Amino acid sequence: MNVNNLPVSQYINELYEKHRNNHEGQVATYIPELGRADPRRFAIAVATADGFVYEVGDTHHPFSIQSISKPLVYGLALEDRGLPYVLTRIGVEPSGDPFNSIAFDERHNRPFNPMVNAGAIAAVSMVAGTGHEARFTRILNIFERFTGREPKLDLAVYSSESATGHRNRAIAYLELNARMIEGDVDEHLSLYFRQCSLLVTARDLAIAGATLANDGLNPLTGKRALRREHVRAVLSVMSSCGMYDYAGEWQFDVGLPAKSGVSGGIMGVLPGQLGIGIYSPLLDPVGNSVRGVKVCEDLSRRFRLHFLEQRGTARTAIRRSYRGSNVRSKRMRTASDNRRLDTLGAEIEVLELQGDLLFTEAEKISRRVNEDIETATYFILDVERLFHVDPVAFDLLASVRAVLSARGKELIFAGPKTVSPIEESTTDMAEWFPSVDSALEAIEDRLLGVQDQDAIVALEEFDLLADMTPEQREALSASLYEQEFKRGDILVRIGAAPDRLFFMTRGRVNVSVPVGDDAVGYRVSTIDPGNIFGELALFGKPPRTADIVGATDGEVLVLLSEALEALRKDRPDIYNCLVMAVGRSLAERLGRANGAIRALAR
Amino acid sequence: MNVNNLPVSQYINELYEKHRNNHEGQVATYIPELGRADPRRFAIAVATADGFVYEVGDTHHPFSIQSISKPLVYGLALEDRGLPYVLTRIGVEPSGDPFNSIAFDERHNRPFNPMVNAGAIAAVSMVAGTGHEARFTRILNIFERFTGREPKLDLAVYSSESATGHRNRAIAYLELNARMIEGDVDEHLSLYFRQCSLLVTARDLAIAGATLANDGLNPLTGKRALRREHVRAVLSVMSSCGMYDYAGEWQFDVGLPAKSGVSGGIMGVLPGQLGIGIYSPLLDPVGNSVRGVKVCEDLSRRFRLHFLEQRGTARTAIRRSYRGSNVRSKRMRTASDNRRLDTLGAEIEVLELQGDLLFTEAEKISRRVNEDIETATYFILDVERLFHVDPVAFDLLASVRAVLSARGKELIFAGPKTVSPIEESTTDMAEWFPSVDSALEAIEDRLLGVQDQDAIVALEEFDLLADMTPEQREALSASLYEQEFKRGDILVRIGAAPDRLFFMTRGRVNVSVPVGDDAVGYRVSTIDPGNIFGELALFGKPPRTADIVGATDGEVLVLLSEALEALRKDRPDIYNCLVMAVGRSLAERLGRANGAIRALAR
Repeated sequence: MNVNNLPVSQYINELYEKHRNNHEGQVATYIPELGRADPRRFAIAVATADGFVYEVGDTHHPFSIQSISKPLVYGLALEDRGLPYVLTRIGVEPSGDPFNSIAFDERHNRPFNPMVNAGAIAAVSMVAGTGHEARFTRILNIFERFTGREPKLDLAVYSSESATGHRNRAIAYLELNARMIEGDVDEHLSLYFRQCSLLVTARDLAIAGATLANDGLNPLTGKRALRREHVRAVLSVMSSCGMYDYAGEWQFDVGLPAKSGVSGGIMGVLPGQLGIGIYSPLLDPVGNSVRGVKVCEDLSRRFRLHFLEQRGTARTAIRRSYRGSNVRSKRMRTASDNRRLDTLGAEIEVLELQGDLLFTEAEKISRRVNEDIETATYFILDVERLFHVDPVAFDLLASVRAVLSARGKELIFAGPKTVSPIEESTTDMAEWFPSVDSALEAIEDRLLGVQDQDAIVALEEFDLLADMTPEQREALSASLYEQEFKRGDILVRIGAAPDRLFFMTRGRVNVSVPVGDDAVGYRVSTIDPGNIFGELALFGKPPRTADIVGATDGEVLVLLSEALEALRKDRPDIYNCLVMAVGRSLAERLGRANGAIRALAR
Repeated sequence: MNVNNLPVSQYINELYEKHRNNHEGQVATYIPELGRADPRRFAIAVATADGFVYEVGDTHHPFSIQSISKPLVYGLALEDRGLPYVLTRIGVEPSGDPFNSIAFDERHNRPFNPMVNAGAIAAVSMVAGTGHEARFTRILNIFERFTGREPKLDLAVYSSESATGHRNRAIAYLELNARMIEGDVDEHLSLYFRQCSLLVTARDLAIAGATLANDGLNPLTGKRALRREHVRAVLSVMSSCGMYDYAGEWQFDVGLPAKSGVSGGIMGVLPGQLGIGIYSPLLDPVGNSVRGVKVCEDLSRRFRLHFLEQRGTARTAIRRSYRGSNVRSKRMRTASDNRRLDTLGAEIEVLELQGDLLFTEAEKISRRVNEDIETATYFILDVERLFHVDPVAFDLLASVRAVLSARGKELIFAGPKTVSPIEESTTDMAEWFPSVDSALEAIEDRLLGVQDQDAIVALEEFDLLADMTPEQREALSASLYEQEFKRGDILVRIGAAPDRLFFMTRGRVNVSVPVGDDAVGYRVSTIDPGNIFGELALFGKPPRTADIVGATDGEVLVLLSEALEALRKDRPDIYNCLVMAVGRSLAERLGRANGAIRALAR
């Protein structure tokens, strides 16, 4: 699969180019190791909840995770102590104070939330296990569950953090003094400095984010990183307290639960949909990565990722898909055309869409088209069951169309243009058919190379009569009379006695059954020249089950019951041939109908 | 439709009973009119984004809206001035201060957010129009768009607010002084006091909430109340600042954008899904309705409505539905049984579910079952396409099942039990079939009153041969030979020449086609006694298209090609009868297959 075909890939490449030359901000300097970060480093990774990773830039460059460790270790504390206990020890209110504040929620005697240092130290103090090594191993484990690989410790960063972490020591001792934490403070602090010094990449952060997005199940390893009920708690505090003093505006503008760290990383989560990992060490005055914030703002705005905006579920965006070899238009073609379509029809892929079409749904569709790009030529998107289509989804699909066009392939829309933004966005876009059936019909015509819709098919060209000798056809012909019809003429009425058989020689007729009060009826099929219809006349008594109406002007040859009966007596050879032909045709049509049922019932 | 059948109805009735005797809290007393509220008043209303309203208690009792007017008028300011302008004048940061704080965001010279009084006064100052009446009319209009009815003004409350609103006057003048607002301060204040004094009901609040949930489109009137892009902004500030000082915990625990007012109302929103309106005038020290908060907590917990939890879209939860009269099991029954099922099958309703099953999806299903409860008896839920099933969804479905059982009707599950919570929750629940097909087959049997699966159907009982005279059947019988088969015996091999016709007299055979490398193959259909199969032998040459294998032990009567040919020569009457019967059967089966395609293609 060529990833560059994917519109999201293209877009994050553009984003990368757009922001790489922004050199605003400063690298963190509070420990020398962070100050040595290369300010040009820049990485963007986006991982979907089903485990597909988009990435650009230095996504494999390791950096110390710093504060982004806080939500992970908070999750571990929840696993070890349970939510009710943890809530008594660490609040969930945004503090409005800086991350290294020594202010506490005095009323409840606890840190305000687990995203400030005081709360994070309280969280790590709750990690279970006996002794430093055992507890550190548990921290390493949860990192591994989230990212899919065991993190390395940056010893230089750890030593530096440990040597200069006086304020964090003060916070820890204030907490011990106020009985907010218990146990060996030095051990807790050592673990805290270590959790901050673990090395991750932007790709790791995206996968950890996707794991949170996927209810705690790592989509790459398939293993659970965090219990479902704790995921909500972690996302909740990220949502209200994850971006330092910028949390309110972040929630308003970007609207993704996220956590940033002073090394320049940001991990973002769109619940149910995707994780974002960004690395760029230049920080703004609040302590967030400058490029990171801008990329998140752009991603959120461009793809409408704000949590109050997202509703669709990408997993069900494609309701069903099938190939034109299995499901046909309602056009009843000749037996030989049908056999050709058994093969040629595979060039058509129909994707039935449903629900709301937003970023994640369109992204999913783009991947599906890209997967099948080698094996199909015509991609029909059935939009009939869509409720709302976001313009961003159309932008992504326009990119998909461009990729297809470049390869001589087509993206085709089918369905009513009632979903409002569709009409505006697509005046110049793609072919548009009023229904899947009409799209299928037109593309089948193209695949079959149908030239002349007005061609006359003489009796000797009927596939069904291929077994007859010229003499037999001649004799049959003598029993038939020609009948011209106009568009709209009724050839057969529902409920009437079946007293004649038709040989279609020119034009087309529609078979339709009345639906409710609709006088026009539901089109069951359209019959092409070269077909026989009204075959119940051959097999007996039941009244007609559908109206047959001229779809165009045309001509049929009619065999009346009496003439049929005469043939049966005088020319049993011809009669027999006819019965065999129609029986075979019915059996073949039944076989195809059962194939369509299997494809549609999936 | 009987609303009491609906599990959500039952649950909010329970909630109402649970909390009605909680008399904690105090009615607001800062103006005498609020102090006169009847503390026993209590109302719960829940409106879905598609316009269905659940309600219990005093849901039609009017009360002054107070602070819940703030998000609506903020929305109006956004419409009148546009988001960029409004953002420069009113922030979006939670302040951590009480609602009547005179603290401002000094850095940006603006109120912190539109949910504190200072921000709300700034918002109303931006409402466009010339003069008090024109502007007030615009406020009335937006209320009407949100609730579907024109609100009345409570003059006594208004006079009291106006007479005692000194602090709000002070705030407004501070804002004027700091150039945060412009224009006629007294007019702005009068409008502010009026917007707070408009009368609404709990039902109104639920509908206004559902309008926000529905992207700004009122689901009852179908009219737009607010532009889509502004809905997000309104929900965003409700989410972070809507519940006074309780916002952080509210967001963590309840996780619904919401706004409360000192008269005792709460309006909650689950984006994309539903609106909640509650009224109970007893307030906690923070100023939120005591019962209101508890009801929201219970609702959120019970139905998992937290915004980080919700992902499904109720609109696509039911992927497709059809009746057993249109789509049949793969069992090929006799013509007469098939005709009986054309009618009886309507008692079966199949609902194909997909995606994630959470509260809103299950709620939708409960309404659908209730709508069809008069016209169907067996409700088959096809769970095969579900990803995740929340236990709360199963609870709701268990209630649905109880209602059905009480009326002698059945809720049936069909599909693999792989979605983990399903297995745990349903050991004692409902019938469970491994597939829709097996469920359909079993219920068809029940509808047909099939007693004895081992019955022998003699030739004279074949529907298809009903036209024959006893003498003809006798003569046909003489051309046949009996063949017993065991379960697993292969009667017909795919690809073989069609040299015989079978009359099924005892047991059943499976028609199956190979699928991929699967030696077992895909079961196309199961053929009952009383049917003829292998009919291609009648109509000519094409090789067999499927394997036919004994599904049970049984017996067939075999007509070899030679015997058929002999009949054609010696007894054309019998031969003809046979051809007609099989042709008719094919035509009938094709008609039914086309019906199934129409039902499935929807």
